[in-house]
Amino acid sequence: MKIINQVDVLATPSDLDEAGREKVCESLNELVADLFALYVKVKNYHWHMSGRHFRDYHLMLDEHAAQILANIDPLAERVRKLGANTIHSISHIADLQRVKDNDEEFVAPKDMLIDLINENKELAKNMRIAHEQCDDIKDVATASLLETYIDEGEERVWFLFEASRDIA
Amino acid sequence: MKIINQVDVLATPSDLDEAGREKVCESLNELVADLFALYVKVKNYHWHMSGRHFRDYHLMLDEHAAQILANIDPLAERVRKLGANTIHSISHIADLQRVKDNDEEFVAPKDMLIDLINENKELAKNMRIAHEQCDDIKDVATASLLETYIDEGEERVWFLFEASRDIA
Amino acid sequence: MKIINQVDVLATPSDLDEAGREKVCESLNELVADLFALYVKVKNYHWHMSGRHFRDYHLMLDEHAAQILANIDPLAERVRKLGANTIHSISHIADLQRVKDNDEEFVAPKDMLIDLINENKELAKNMRIAHEQCDDIKDVATASLLETYIDEGEERVWFLFEASRDIA
Amino acid sequence: MKIINQVDVLATPSDLDEAGREKVCESLNELVADLFALYVKVKNYHWHMSGRHFRDYHLMLDEHAAQILANIDPLAERVRKLGANTIHSISHIADLQRVKDNDEEFVAPKDMLIDLINENKELAKNMRIAHEQCDDIKDVATASLLETYIDEGEERVWFLFEASRDIA
Amino acid sequence: MKIINQVDVLATPSDLDEAGREKVCESLNELVADLFALYVKVKNYHWHMSGRHFRDYHLMLDEHAAQILANIDPLAERVRKLGANTIHSISHIADLQRVKDNDEEFVAPKDMLIDLINENKELAKNMRIAHEQCDDIKDVATASLLETYIDEGEERVWFLFEASRDIA
Amino acid sequence: MKIINQVDVLATPSDLDEAGREKVCESLNELVADLFALYVKVKNYHWHMSGRHFRDYHLMLDEHAAQILANIDPLAERVRKLGANTIHSISHIADLQRVKDNDEEFVAPKDMLIDLINENKELAKNMRIAHEQCDDIKDVATASLLETYIDEGEERVWFLFEASRDIA
Amino acid sequence: MKIINQVDVLATPSDLDEAGREKVCESLNELVADLFALYVKVKNYHWHMSGRHFRDYHLMLDEHAAQILANIDPLAERVRKLGANTIHSISHIADLQRVKDNDEEFVAPKDMLIDLINENKELAKNMRIAHEQCDDIKDVATASLLETYIDEGEERVWFLFEASRDIA
Amino acid sequence: MKIINQVDVLATPSDLDEAGREKVCESLNELVADLFALYVKVKNYHWHMSGRHFRDYHLMLDEHAAQILANIDPLAERVRKLGANTIHSISHIADLQRVKDNDEEFVAPKDMLIDLINENKELAKNMRIAHEQCDDIKDVATASLLETYIDEGEERVWFLFEASRDIA
Amino acid sequence: MKIINQVDVLATPSDLDEAGREKVCESLNELVADLFALYVKVKNYHWHMSGRHFRDYHLMLDEHAAQILANIDPLAERVRKLGANTIHSISHIADLQRVKDNDEEFVAPKDMLIDLINENKELAKNMRIAHEQCDDIKDVATASLLETYIDEGEERVWFLFEASRDIA
Amino acid sequence: MKIINQVDVLATPSDLDEAGREKVCESLNELVADLFALYVKVKNYHWHMSGRHFRDYHLMLDEHAAQILANIDPLAERVRKLGANTIHSISHIADLQRVKDNDEEFVAPKDMLIDLINENKELAKNMRIAHEQCDDIKDVATASLLETYIDEGEERVWFLFEASRDIA
Amino acid sequence: MKIINQVDVLATPSDLDEAGREKVCESLNELVADLFALYVKVKNYHWHMSGRHFRDYHLMLDEHAAQILANIDPLAERVRKLGANTIHSISHIADLQRVKDNDEEFVAPKDMLIDLINENKELAKNMRIAHEQCDDIKDVATASLLETYIDEGEERVWFLFEASRDIA
Amino acid sequence: MKIINQVDVLATPSDLDEAGREKVCESLNELVADLFALYVKVKNYHWHMSGRHFRDYHLMLDEHAAQILANIDPLAERVRKLGANTIHSISHIADLQRVKDNDEEFVAPKDMLIDLINENKELAKNMRIAHEQCDDIKDVATASLLETYIDEGEERVWFLFEASRDIA
Repeated sequence: MKIINQVDVLATPSDLDEAGREKVCESLNELVADLFALYVKVKNYHWHMSGRHFRDYHLMLDEHAAQILANIDPLAERVRKLGANTIHSISHIADLQRVKDNDEEFVAPKDMLIDLINENKELAKNMRIAHEQCDDIKDVATASLLETYIDEGEERVWFLFEASRDIA
Repeated sequence: MKIINQVDVLATPSDLDEAGREKVCESLNELVADLFALYVKVKNYHWHMSGRHFRDYHLMLDEHAAQILANIDPLAERVRKLGANTIHSISHIADLQRVKDNDEEFVAPKDMLIDLINENKELAKNMRIAHEQCDDIKDVATASLLETYIDEGEERVWFLFEASRDIA
Repeated sequence: MKIINQVDVLATPSDLDEAGREKVCESLNELVADLFALYVKVKNYHWHMSGRHFRDYHLMLDEHAAQILANIDPLAERVRKLGANTIHSISHIADLQRVKDNDEEFVAPKDMLIDLINENKELAKNMRIAHEQCDDIKDVATASLLETYIDEGEERVWFLFEASRDIA
Repeated sequence: MKIINQVDVLATPSDLDEAGREKVCESLNELVADLFALYVKVKNYHWHMSGRHFRDYHLMLDEHAAQILANIDPLAERVRKLGANTIHSISHIADLQRVKDNDEEFVAPKDMLIDLINENKELAKNMRIAHEQCDDIKDVATASLLETYIDEGEERVWFLFEASRDIA
Repeated sequence: MKIINQVDVLATPSDLDEAGREKVCESLNELVADLFALYVKVKNYHWHMSGRHFRDYHLMLDEHAAQILANIDPLAERVRKLGANTIHSISHIADLQRVKDNDEEFVAPKDMLIDLINENKELAKNMRIAHEQCDDIKDVATASLLETYIDEGEERVWFLFEASRDIA
Repeated sequence: MKIINQVDVLATPSDLDEAGREKVCESLNELVADLFALYVKVKNYHWHMSGRHFRDYHLMLDEHAAQILANIDPLAERVRKLGANTIHSISHIADLQRVKDNDEEFVAPKDMLIDLINENKELAKNMRIAHEQCDDIKDVATASLLETYIDEGEERVWFLFEASRDIA
Repeated sequence: MKIINQVDVLATPSDLDEAGREKVCESLNELVADLFALYVKVKNYHWHMSGRHFRDYHLMLDEHAAQILANIDPLAERVRKLGANTIHSISHIADLQRVKDNDEEFVAPKDMLIDLINENKELAKNMRIAHEQCDDIKDVATASLLETYIDEGEERVWFLFEASRDIA
Repeated sequence: MKIINQVDVLATPSDLDEAGREKVCESLNELVADLFALYVKVKNYHWHMSGRHFRDYHLMLDEHAAQILANIDPLAERVRKLGANTIHSISHIADLQRVKDNDEEFVAPKDMLIDLINENKELAKNMRIAHEQCDDIKDVATASLLETYIDEGEERVWFLFEASRDIA
Repeated sequence: MKIINQVDVLATPSDLDEAGREKVCESLNELVADLFALYVKVKNYHWHMSGRHFRDYHLMLDEHAAQILANIDPLAERVRKLGANTIHSISHIADLQRVKDNDEEFVAPKDMLIDLINENKELAKNMRIAHEQCDDIKDVATASLLETYIDEGEERVWFLFEASRDIA
Repeated sequence: MKIINQVDVLATPSDLDEAGREKVCESLNELVADLFALYVKVKNYHWHMSGRHFRDYHLMLDEHAAQILANIDPLAERVRKLGANTIHSISHIADLQRVKDNDEEFVAPKDMLIDLINENKELAKNMRIAHEQCDDIKDVATASLLETYIDEGEERVWFLFEASRDIA
Repeated sequence: MKIINQVDVLATPSDLDEAGREKVCESLNELVADLFALYVKVKNYHWHMSGRHFRDYHLMLDEHAAQILANIDPLAERVRKLGANTIHSISHIADLQRVKDNDEEFVAPKDMLIDLINENKELAKNMRIAHEQCDDIKDVATASLLETYIDEGEERVWFLFEASRDIA
Repeated sequence: MKIINQVDVLATPSDLDEAGREKVCESLNELVADLFALYVKVKNYHWHMSGRHFRDYHLMLDEHAAQILANIDPLAERVRKLGANTIHSISHIADLQRVKDNDEEFVAPKDMLIDLINENKELAKNMRIAHEQCDDIKDVATASLLETYIDEGEERVWFLFEASRDIA
């Protein structure tokens, strides 16, 4: 991915280092793809939840999905503000996503929770990596957004982890 | 796709004809896939919009995207209420979607509008077909939802069509 | 009225039958004209109400007027989405309206109620006819709107009818 | 039940066929009675819920009760708009209700869920029958209300069914 | 009715005298039954109101019905908090209710008002008796709820009484 | 009443003519007294209303009372901003009020309406006189407030007048 | 138009000069007719807008229409408060309106804007004339309403004028 | 004051002892008069406040005035529900009020606070006496209202007392 | 604890018996200490909840904590209005609290529920004792607050008790 | 300043006298400059407030600043509607402002209040002069806005004056 | 304090260094204890405030208390997300708190302000230290929360400092 | 600018290094001056916008202006919390501002957009420099605010840049 030289005639849209911006934008686009894929997975589990805890988990996953979706637009727009292009399509997402699709007809509730613990942990870790790249090029605005999203990701891990434990 | 016999022990969740339900559910899952793919495409154009009308179209496409997203959950849950499974993943969407991905780095604003006229027209037509299938099996609840979504689709076509005309 | 061939170059805005659309649009424009004329009549009675029930009926008619006005924009926009033109002016309304103007300086409260029972009944009947035309051409989106408006019209008839009865 | 000839002097409140209206009104009054009886049963279970899922099910049943109660007024008022009388009393409800009273001192949570699955399924089926009667006499306004209520009933079945399954 | 010994293993849910609680709970269940029956009667009159004051009384009775319904849940839950069972079904209501059902096809508006004056007066009186029983066993929480509900009942009597007087 | 020379040391709080301000302030204090007295009278009739229109008139008079009360604070504060003192007490009101107290135990509803027509007409007339005094000294801020209050007073006259007419 | 002598028995509803009121009421009724006609024209253009600025102008005209509609009720009620009758019907509007109907099938966007500049300028001028008539008879309440409406009219002229200029 | 025998023909509006009700109503009317008089006094001080604490005390007194005014309507309506008449006029207030009018042109801020401490203390004491009278006749609804108002009165005393102390 | 003689110069803030107030204030301060300690305990369990019901109980305990916290300020301010001092610090709480601290690193969910049943029962009992002390000195304002808080405490007991039962 | 002849081709945006408009616009631009300068001064004092009344005055000045800022946009837009240009920059403000800048490092609270009394009095006087100029050319829309702003200015003077007095 | 190895079977909840997490969690728990202790102290002063500024400071301290309380839950939950345990009880708070309890019966207002300046300064400093520890282990989510809380603490210091200065 | 030694007697309001704070405060005051100057410039263009995109750009610039204004108060208050003085007046702004005033009578829309791209880019760059200074002295609270404001500035650049491109 290359920073589009959209500023030839007028003015560069950013005073940040161009090479650094390219690297950050690549990371952000991967995160956006992951967030889309995770959103679909969480909705998948939200729709196919079953068992005595149905309503409780169905609601929890809907809250998680809403939280995840709300991360997408600000990150994608950060890419645009940094002068690069962002996600275009389902196939673009499929190319970049690190979240693993799960097309099983049936997944037991506890397995859903465990799968999502791992996905959210991975997401938080990747966001932390992107945060360091932002630090490197002094892109404090993107970094600030990621700080909140990392906290949300860690909160989802905590909720899912505790809910997956067999303690009466 | 097969209606899951989840009602062996307890009770069938629906008094509607099983074969008809299978057919309706297949159509609904295709629509859900289309809505996801169209959502991503509309956000794509929302993010990569350019030109003197930038803010006006950027806002319009965000409204369209929000409207499209809001169609997904009720339709996917209709599939579940009819006793079948719905969308699981990005790859599942990629398999079923009829919306065409557009991964061009640059699309001119007017070309975006024209592309979306066609996608939304196609979507409304496919919703109308699903509506007739619902009518056939007396699934009036799904049909009622589709009536509103068809109107919304036709409204998007109208807005996009008028905005794409070169009249001063 | 003819469906405007606004789609020569680009694409037809609708997959519905053109002749059927023309017929539906004619009915809808007559309804829009009726709704405008009824709105003015109800406001007329709202402004010229008198007698011991003044406040009660004054408020009821204002609620009816607001409800009637809110039917206009969605129906007129349905005409546009179907590819035709809608109402242009006061004289256009005067040409199409079936609601009868009442320019009397003084109308007794009970006579106002009876007049409006008849107008609203007629309106509901005409909406039902338009609904059948929509059914004929599978325009389920317009039909769905009319279902709600027919219920509102029948509610106004009920309220007005009961309020016009001399029972202590 | 007979359509009251309340329109002798003034005007018939409806252009729909009288015999058809009688039939629809009978069905609607049975539904109103069922909704009242189901409301009491759901509140019964809401109040007497027990076990580790207490709060989750207690809240779910309160949501279901609120949803059921909200169906009553519009359907009863449809009967009035069609020119007939509707429910008068507890004994009237007792005469017409098809929902089975359960006066057990103790009902296990899972048995509550299973009982309600069946009641809601039956309710949805009876609403679908009433919907067909509306279709027969072109009473599209009542039909439109029922479409939403059937969806709600099917949603309650889905929630209750999933929550009653013993899957960890 | 007997206080359920649900606290064998764990702990008594209340430090109040058990015999006194039984007596209070019996009174509260009768009140809950009365409130349900009165709710249906008020809705009955709300639906079958007629005459020149239709809208005014139709709205007043809807406000009364909403107020009455809102008394039910807190009182029924008080019974549960005191360790007893509460209302289960329509037939349970029919057994306990002191409100008299009125299944007349037609009731004149003024007769409706007079009937409701008496029912509401009786209700307030019965609530006052229950209040004294609460005082006897120091159940101040239930008493406090009843104080507000008695005021509401007396307000309904006042409104209905004044509205039933033939003064110009 | 004299303009308090509170500005000896610091600065005159107003560039308006002092004699003119005195005259305006006297008029405003009389209006404030009238508004208080009318507020009590309207609440009196609100509380002692009777007859078949009870709820309708009871509500109307409460709306009028609220509207009248809302006039008091801004006018009293205008007096303070103009450098004079305003109303102090019930006896001060009694001294200045032109509204006539009515301590009858029973007043028929229609007589209440007619009494209030006259009081509100008188109030509007007195406000118009005060408005002219404001014009004379260029106190446009007070004048602007009075314009709205005169309209409200004339609206109350209209409502009360129409409601007092014996037209069926 | 003549001031109705509705006050024979009771009391004149106004202390303003009767001849002056007649004159003001005539002007106000013409304004009400103009506002209705302009409302329809603005909605006409709102519905038939086209071109690249479609959404922007479609929204602007809807805001203008809402603003215009909100002027009607207060002015018509001023006529009633002054003791005269106001608008009764579509034909009454047609008789009094000075706004020119435009029934063209197609109007270019810029021509719409220019047409509306002229209509709104004319409206503001006519409101200013009515304002002077109010001043003449000391009807400060009507005058105050018109001041706000004139500002709104001038704001619409400004928006439309700037939007009609061909400046890049 | 005598309980009006308004229930000759229809029904007594209350099951409470008539003599006791008379006594309670007399006390309530005195309280209503006191609340009106105190409201005017608090507004008096609100308008004539001065000194470095102007804004702080001006706001505090406005909050107190709003709280006092909100006590009036429920208490006056309690009198009506108990079958007696309540306050009619400014002169009626002047007859019954125990609050002392203060018509001084200038009152120092601290003297205002001290005066209001005493008035509010006296009010709370009189409310407590009325509460005991309610207890005597089992009028628990009035008693419940007074409990909240006594707390508000004691809060005003606390605020005013602390604010009047010369502690730095 | 002694009632502070803060009223030497000005006026006693209360007409209630001083010795009785001392006793009530001691009880209230113990309750405030208990409420603080219980708030911390409930938050402790809210934070350290685990197991399949994690989210359901985590939310329930947060609702309980919010309810408990909301009792503190009004009770502490009652102490101040009665002329005494209230809670100052963590060590003050530690001195007065009867709630038992639980510093275990791990507590099983069910043990948390059982612990809280007991704490809330004890709290309700202590509030009932304080209520009787208020009755003894006619402090109806404090008593009224406690009535609501006792109901809340009993509701928490009920929720916790039912949730702790092993019924499927 | 000259009225821009922006209406050559199309239409004059106003029926008001051109010379008069020029004069009014000059006054309005001076007022806009004063309002900007006063806004900065009030924020200055808001930020640098000190002393025991810190919070009270800090909040009061923030309310004043918000009120002042809200006057700017409507007045500047009035200039545009009258066909002239308005404020462009900080230096433009500096040229036109009559408010005196105060760049002292430290200003005592009382001196801040006294300074603002004078500035606000001056502002109100200048607004009154502009109001007369509007009257002269019949620009009633601008005049109406100024009436409200003058009242606000006089209110600020009153608050500041009373707060600056050394009365205990 | 040790990071609980709750992730043996499933997965570590965090990719951050374990030793670093332990250190951060210890700091956070001390902060949570301080916030609880400071909350009680601020409420203490809120309840025992006195003097002419009573209402102003009483309100300010309530705002501060609410702000402090709102810091607790997010910080305690950060500890849980990092895999450690947080505060359990009043005695736990007493062990960890660095805020000094003040159990004086009487504290002069100014002394309250000065005490709180110091406590808040100390709190901000300790938060800054915790922030550096977060930086060291790349826990950007906790750091981001602390940044806002430090600003709030510094704002409280500023308000309290300015309010404690004796400047007229 | 020097840090005011306001803490001689009491306590330093900050534990941060004094020299570093001076430097940060200088930067912040320059930013506050820039934000004021940019606010005026954006309003200037908002008021003098013209051309076919008038409404779209007029609204966009109003949103930008509101966003810019909202940055001022928090940054100015940061300066105060750090112990220094902030902006005092229009002339103070003029001294410090780096934004260039543009007093041209006419600026073409596109030139407005290009001018604002440059100003906002410069602003974002200067905020980034201030952010680094904050980092140097560990003033994380100021840094956190700037992170959000930099993102907003970059968003304005992006919107303005895209809207200035001549792409159809």
